[in-house]
Amino acid sequence: MANKVRMGMVGGGSGALIGAVHRLAAEMTGDIELVAGAFSSNPDASKQFGIELGLDASRAYGNYEEMIDAEATLPEDQRMQCVSIVTPNNSHADISCRALKKGMHVICDKPLAGNLEDALRVAAVVEETGLLFGITHTYTGYPLIIEARERVRAGELGDIRRVVVIYLQDWLSQAADTKGSKQATWRTDASVGGESGAFADIGTHAFNLVEFITGQQMTEVAAELKTVVEDRDIDDDGAAMFRLQNGAAGLLAASQVCTGAVNGLRIEIYGDKGSLHWSHGDPNTLTIGRRGDPDQVISPGNNIAYLSDAARSRCRTPGGHPEGFIEAFSNLYVDFAAAVRAFPEPTDNICATVEDGVRAMRFVRATITSTNNGSQWTSI
Amino acid sequence: MANKVRMGMVGGGSGALIGAVHRLAAEMTGDIELVAGAFSSNPDASKQFGIELGLDASRAYGNYEEMIDAEATLPEDQRMQCVSIVTPNNSHADISCRALKKGMHVICDKPLAGNLEDALRVAAVVEETGLLFGITHTYTGYPLIIEARERVRAGELGDIRRVVVIYLQDWLSQAADTKGSKQATWRTDASVGGESGAFADIGTHAFNLVEFITGQQMTEVAAELKTVVEDRDIDDDGAAMFRLQNGAAGLLAASQVCTGAVNGLRIEIYGDKGSLHWSHGDPNTLTIGRRGDPDQVISPGNNIAYLSDAARSRCRTPGGHPEGFIEAFSNLYVDFAAAVRAFPEPTDNICATVEDGVRAMRFVRATITSTNNGSQWTSI
Amino acid sequence: MANKVRMGMVGGGSGALIGAVHRLAAEMTGDIELVAGAFSSNPDASKQFGIELGLDASRAYGNYEEMIDAEATLPEDQRMQCVSIVTPNNSHADISCRALKKGMHVICDKPLAGNLEDALRVAAVVEETGLLFGITHTYTGYPLIIEARERVRAGELGDIRRVVVIYLQDWLSQAADTKGSKQATWRTDASVGGESGAFADIGTHAFNLVEFITGQQMTEVAAELKTVVEDRDIDDDGAAMFRLQNGAAGLLAASQVCTGAVNGLRIEIYGDKGSLHWSHGDPNTLTIGRRGDPDQVISPGNNIAYLSDAARSRCRTPGGHPEGFIEAFSNLYVDFAAAVRAFPEPTDNICATVEDGVRAMRFVRATITSTNNGSQWTSI
Amino acid sequence: MANKVRMGMVGGGSGALIGAVHRLAAEMTGDIELVAGAFSSNPDASKQFGIELGLDASRAYGNYEEMIDAEATLPEDQRMQCVSIVTPNNSHADISCRALKKGMHVICDKPLAGNLEDALRVAAVVEETGLLFGITHTYTGYPLIIEARERVRAGELGDIRRVVVIYLQDWLSQAADTKGSKQATWRTDASVGGESGAFADIGTHAFNLVEFITGQQMTEVAAELKTVVEDRDIDDDGAAMFRLQNGAAGLLAASQVCTGAVNGLRIEIYGDKGSLHWSHGDPNTLTIGRRGDPDQVISPGNNIAYLSDAARSRCRTPGGHPEGFIEAFSNLYVDFAAAVRAFPEPTDNICATVEDGVRAMRFVRATITSTNNGSQWTSI
Repeated sequence: MANKVRMGMVGGGSGALIGAVHRLAAEMTGDIELVAGAFSSNPDASKQFGIELGLDASRAYGNYEEMIDAEATLPEDQRMQCVSIVTPNNSHADISCRALKKGMHVICDKPLAGNLEDALRVAAVVEETGLLFGITHTYTGYPLIIEARERVRAGELGDIRRVVVIYLQDWLSQAADTKGSKQATWRTDASVGGESGAFADIGTHAFNLVEFITGQQMTEVAAELKTVVEDRDIDDDGAAMFRLQNGAAGLLAASQVCTGAVNGLRIEIYGDKGSLHWSHGDPNTLTIGRRGDPDQVISPGNNIAYLSDAARSRCRTPGGHPEGFIEAFSNLYVDFAAAVRAFPEPTDNICATVEDGVRAMRFVRATITSTNNGSQWTSI
Repeated sequence: MANKVRMGMVGGGSGALIGAVHRLAAEMTGDIELVAGAFSSNPDASKQFGIELGLDASRAYGNYEEMIDAEATLPEDQRMQCVSIVTPNNSHADISCRALKKGMHVICDKPLAGNLEDALRVAAVVEETGLLFGITHTYTGYPLIIEARERVRAGELGDIRRVVVIYLQDWLSQAADTKGSKQATWRTDASVGGESGAFADIGTHAFNLVEFITGQQMTEVAAELKTVVEDRDIDDDGAAMFRLQNGAAGLLAASQVCTGAVNGLRIEIYGDKGSLHWSHGDPNTLTIGRRGDPDQVISPGNNIAYLSDAARSRCRTPGGHPEGFIEAFSNLYVDFAAAVRAFPEPTDNICATVEDGVRAMRFVRATITSTNNGSQWTSI
Repeated sequence: MANKVRMGMVGGGSGALIGAVHRLAAEMTGDIELVAGAFSSNPDASKQFGIELGLDASRAYGNYEEMIDAEATLPEDQRMQCVSIVTPNNSHADISCRALKKGMHVICDKPLAGNLEDALRVAAVVEETGLLFGITHTYTGYPLIIEARERVRAGELGDIRRVVVIYLQDWLSQAADTKGSKQATWRTDASVGGESGAFADIGTHAFNLVEFITGQQMTEVAAELKTVVEDRDIDDDGAAMFRLQNGAAGLLAASQVCTGAVNGLRIEIYGDKGSLHWSHGDPNTLTIGRRGDPDQVISPGNNIAYLSDAARSRCRTPGGHPEGFIEAFSNLYVDFAAAVRAFPEPTDNICATVEDGVRAMRFVRATITSTNNGSQWTSI
Repeated sequence: MANKVRMGMVGGGSGALIGAVHRLAAEMTGDIELVAGAFSSNPDASKQFGIELGLDASRAYGNYEEMIDAEATLPEDQRMQCVSIVTPNNSHADISCRALKKGMHVICDKPLAGNLEDALRVAAVVEETGLLFGITHTYTGYPLIIEARERVRAGELGDIRRVVVIYLQDWLSQAADTKGSKQATWRTDASVGGESGAFADIGTHAFNLVEFITGQQMTEVAAELKTVVEDRDIDDDGAAMFRLQNGAAGLLAASQVCTGAVNGLRIEIYGDKGSLHWSHGDPNTLTIGRRGDPDQVISPGNNIAYLSDAARSRCRTPGGHPEGFIEAFSNLYVDFAAAVRAFPEPTDNICATVEDGVRAMRFVRATITSTNNGSQWTSI
């Protein structure tokens, strides 16, 4: 189909869950075409997988260097305009930098990099090239998370006083979980996953969500990261107290070893005028608490005139039909594709930026530092 | 992209909500390509819309007759293999019959037709041609609805005793709702929508869900259909008592005028051994009630070995990530595309069949007859 | 303690669940003293139980006739002023009439009587004596049910269009459930329980709740009562369509054989302006649906200025503390005791009256008649 | 009524919410009689209130010293056996010590005292006298909290890894809240309330709940207590990270200034085998999470053979009827009265003990110390 934004992908080969979600999310935009890919560290597997996906064989590459270099030589109206990076964390920076330097916009799975230094390196290249860089902090793609941000901006909660954000999973709760699962293995191996495990993987989601909704920077953290399951060399569990710019206090927990917890990201924010609650388990509902008035349940129904434009425009189905993770994910790709199309004109883009990504890595670093210093308060 | 199932579409032009959902659902399969379309009753608008969607201009047709006839003359490996019909109910039968007679498989929005006679006409042509016919009773595409069916089949509930199925909406609750909305207008106009309004539109969903999960036919109904908002000539509200084959009793309500109800389809089924509950508001949860044991909450988490194969294979995201309406819808297209591909070999296909569609129209007819006879018990 | 309302009790001996709840509810008022009782059909057991409860031995009677007659001869400031009747249904009428005729007010467990004729007999004696008669339809004692009524009265829902009320239990779902349990046995035996089982026992709760909240009479019913578990001679399950005075339509189900259902009374009412939902499983929450506005969750929190006086005055705990069944039950006794105290001055009393009780028995009779006539519409 | 446990009360005069709850809870046991009281710091008001409650005028005392001394001189079978203390925190210790020294058992509202030193003073007198001392940490009276403890004890969760306990209120969220409300005023005034505000008032509930359910001591805490609303001299908000004996990690928040939070105590506990969740907003439900199995919803229904004896014996209503705060509160009084009756024989008593109370005050002190030392980890 003509006129779509042309995208390449690095990573996401056979069996990679998150790569498949990225492709689906991109496809759902109706505005992006996957034209090239280097899907696996095994060149043959990579090419084979690309062909199975229906790519032109000449654009099913054996590795990402080859892909980026070759695509850069294609005519401007054919070559890939952007690349989606869905590899383990430690490789994000190199791939990003190479793509940017060849003139390609980048959309990268979170976190931005395996460590802060790498993250800063990417940020420098983004700065230098002026190209687009998006990070898929999926949760910001949920219409009601956007609504939450709009309501905080509009002052409905007043001054924020306290935040609670909890992201608990159980998929790495047993030692055996890292056997035989690529996703599990690299997330618990610092040489591939980077300097942090659970905090890089999902703690950054929680961190980003707090800054996204409150519109404030998290300034300090007192944290304790832990390695609960033996034979892992990075954190698989942890928690922190934190402070926002305005002095508000918060609690954050992130763990991948909480048996019985099913990917349960929840956030609650309290101000002097009101509060809001959102949970990933019921993503189509945002509850607003006020004093002396009934709670309000915001849910995209048939008549959603009361939703902010920013949220309403991100709803895809007729009122009252539940939307989920893929729709939220796709909302990021919708905005990213629109930004690519409009480039260099700026657009309203809910994707996390490279600055957001650097901040998330500063957060991870601060939690590690704090942990190493008896949980003392540490600046982010 | 090579090798996809080639699909045409009738209806679903600019502004049509359900047409866009069908396209998204088909696209999400990764296995279907929209190659042709007749999207609007206005030929110019139809062609224009097809081109906007990226169709080859020669396959953006002015009307469905033209499309079906022209496509039938294309080489076998180019012409559309199937057609998706997303027009108002009264037109389903003619379009279906023409497509089938030209050798094309059909996937049609529910209900099958505007009235029972038309439905039977389609069924006869399906019988005659032996081609595939699918109806998008979306709810059967939800993994946990499939799980519900599997558990009933496995005898977990024992003998079914009582069913409650309630599908209430409010989007037609005011007289003004039919002004300026195509979707609303034809659903309240018998000349376009057919012999029933709410019961054809959503009552058939409720009916289909009961038969799908219980694996039993609904045999009799005592109903009262109503037209609550004035100046409508078909039902916008109604309810019924019903009986299943095994003598179980049930209640069904379907309404589009229940102010404050947001597309709330819910079903609960009680047997002599246990019960189950599912609600569209929280589609990723199925609750199993047993006596003398805690309720079980079935929800696709990280370790869903306990889900039936039939349900698990329809989950698309990593455990614990909410899925919604579009994923469920797409699951129907996944199965339909697989069936087209395998044709004439039979496949395991959760799409409702033409027989299911005829049954739903018999149900609608029986509720009308019962209403006209003082709600007396009427065979379906 | 001086000055309390002096109450006697008939029924509620050792092991009787509902009798204990009545005593607790009365005690919680702080305004009622149990001074006499005839607790069992076995005179010795009756006396013994009364003494165990701490009654003066002379007022622990062997049977109700003896109690009523003897108490009536005591000095006015000592004799029991009212009697609480917690026996099987068929005996309610005789006990009530004897007490009323001796000048005692009556508060009686629902339903009013074992059949309509008995109910009318009681009503005639109430009329004749002018005494107070209360029926413990517990649900009307929940503050949020009262709030629901107030909001309907205030027109928040507009014209009522549709009602759904469902009361399903599973405690009689197996044939064995009636073995060895007094409560279970008499409820499935017409000679003790009366002309109906489940519909008299809990269907009347559902019926009363509809009339209480909507402020309208139910005028007609098309019903099907069933005996699902063999060897029972009265209904243990059933459902009905109904109509209210204003033409609104409704569905009602009541069953004691729905395995996995745990005493789940729920009601939802839809009007042309809004709707409300309440469920016994979460009695401290009332949800108000409106169109084009977020749902409101009414829940007695810290600042319940928004609650009606009628509801607020029935909350007992500091805001946000859950209240339950006994508190609701006790609210009925609070009002009844206040009415006894004020007699013959009228008071604002949420207890169901003898007229309400007669209406409930008319409803039961109409459902039986409708069942016997092929579910035809039958006037109440 | 003969044979009840004779209790006096200190505090809880006209308008005092928690005093009324204590009386109701005691009354609901059917086993306690209020025989004496000193309800107010104003002697006349105190006597007047006692008489209004129906006390014998001679036992409606002007102050607690008078009451304790006078009662101690009454014949053994008449004098009060125990005293319920429901005054502001700072006065708990003196009253407790005087009563104990006169041979009276004590049941005291939480926290044990205004500060740790006072708490230790009481503990010494309990030790010395050997009398009973109960503290009303209400939450341990909920049947499902007891069930949670039993399940942890039985090893269902395996080794505890992480705990999250959150207790947020909003009733002191505005500066004006302390005007004109006795309860609010003393809780924000160190000279009456003690060394801590929110943490003493509700943080101790959260702390006690963690130790009660896990059966482990909290060993260390890194905390930050805050005074959010100006013109208060003690904490009204705060949070902490904590460690349990076995090395498990936890988060605790307690605040009375979170606008929109309605008395929302929640606890979730994760082990290596499973997890549990309980929330005060839905106290009749306990959710058990396991890996690879559906969640289980524990709720006292009709057939609760699966509940532990300890929990089942604390359920008061027929299955499926919601119980609330007062029932939980009363369960503490049930056990306390039984202990008084059995004294000096030990009983199974879920009331928090003086040791629990001292531990809670140690926790409060540790959070204050940690706050003053930059949130450093502090032993409890």
